[in-house]
Amino acid sequence: MSDTITVRGFVATDPRTNTTNGGDIVSSFRLAVTERRYDRDASAWIDGHTNWFTVVGFRQLASNMCGSLKKGNRVIVVGKLRLKQWEKDGRVYHSAEVEAESVGHDLYWGSAKFARNPQDGQ
Amino acid sequence: MSDTITVRGFVATDPRTNTTNGGDIVSSFRLAVTERRYDRDASAWIDGHTNWFTVVGFRQLASNMCGSLKKGNRVIVVGKLRLKQWEKDGRVYHSAEVEAESVGHDLYWGSAKFARNPQDGQ
Amino acid sequence: MSDTITVRGFVATDPRTNTTNGGDIVSSFRLAVTERRYDRDASAWIDGHTNWFTVVGFRQLASNMCGSLKKGNRVIVVGKLRLKQWEKDGRVYHSAEVEAESVGHDLYWGSAKFARNPQDGQ
Amino acid sequence: MSDTITVRGFVATDPRTNTTNGGDIVSSFRLAVTERRYDRDASAWIDGHTNWFTVVGFRQLASNMCGSLKKGNRVIVVGKLRLKQWEKDGRVYHSAEVEAESVGHDLYWGSAKFARNPQDGQ
Repeated sequence: MSDTITVRGFVATDPRTNTTNGGDIVSSFRLAVTERRYDRDASAWIDGHTNWFTVVGFRQLASNMCGSLKKGNRVIVVGKLRLKQWEKDGRVYHSAEVEAESVGHDLYWGSAKFARNPQDGQ
Repeated sequence: MSDTITVRGFVATDPRTNTTNGGDIVSSFRLAVTERRYDRDASAWIDGHTNWFTVVGFRQLASNMCGSLKKGNRVIVVGKLRLKQWEKDGRVYHSAEVEAESVGHDLYWGSAKFARNPQDGQ
Repeated sequence: MSDTITVRGFVATDPRTNTTNGGDIVSSFRLAVTERRYDRDASAWIDGHTNWFTVVGFRQLASNMCGSLKKGNRVIVVGKLRLKQWEKDGRVYHSAEVEAESVGHDLYWGSAKFARNPQDGQ
Repeated sequence: MSDTITVRGFVATDPRTNTTNGGDIVSSFRLAVTERRYDRDASAWIDGHTNWFTVVGFRQLASNMCGSLKKGNRVIVVGKLRLKQWEKDGRVYHSAEVEAESVGHDLYWGSAKFARNPQDGQ
């Protein structure tokens, strides 16, 4: 089945852009998602655990992420979760990646001016 | 339980803003969400059914929606689905509302300049 | 984009089964999903709005829904939301359908004995 | 914000049950979630990447998980994702946990007999 998830958090690093071997633009950034939960004892919403993700976008989405996102921005990310683990030189590495289908600034936290890409046929 | 959903589509009407009896700003717009599915016979992605929602935001989100969203924008909406039905003068009315927690322009379709609200403590 | 949603609620009608023109089994039931929200004044969780859906499943899922679900069961449903509206004899009709991909009894509320279909290759 | 996610996969280990320091029952199992994607070249659906999670449930859900789930069962899990990382004796450990709110056998793959817990007030 699929693991399409929606996560909302803040951009912890400016997006970095590269080119894949196939010539596609790829852009990625670190996203911090902190749980908010209601503490009945304190009668207040408090911060809970923080999940860290690497968000990756390709092609047109990559270009727009790179031109639009800055460290500190609050964003919504919709995409596929990929948890990976590998070994190298006797050490185990892990990553939690979201391959983004859609990314947007969260208007709960601020306002935005949007400019549609001219090449869209649709 | 809860019905928090994520929907992605285009803004079909410019946001309209009002004030609730309690003095809060409320902003709403119509959202069209068209399913995309892969047609094996045609070997192509085609449009499927379109869902129509009224997206409603309150307070700070309402102000930012009003100042940021325009008819035709592609957006991501996260919120609670509320399906309602009522009768008036012998006719039955229905609405499919999403009470938005977060709304953002979808960077898959274009770029955006974000300005954070100054009053955020967080 | 897509509208895959997860809803949790209770089965309000025993599933009814039919056959499509194409010869596929189709099964459907009514689902009531009631929002639970924390009321700070009362310091308690209370019931909020109830959404009503018609859940539809096809083929193998339809057979299993029919043999497993009873009115009153608590279930999890994952599927595509389809909001429809049509006119007939001067009246407007509406439906909120979830075309189910997966349905399961919610073990939060009880226990279940599961028997896998024998014909699964996977 | 929150990270409530829905994942569907198969139970890779029989649930293990313990008691928390506070006296609550807690039950956990390993879940494997394999992506299915349409390969246009092969004109077929193929397996993609597999995500591994530890699913954890508490109290009544824990008891029901323990009495109902077996290795190999196909399930739907709704809960909060918690990605954790810690160091011990110079090594870095990771976990991807889903704190389950709801778990159910996926009727896409088989049939189930459900028995509601007698103690539910609701």
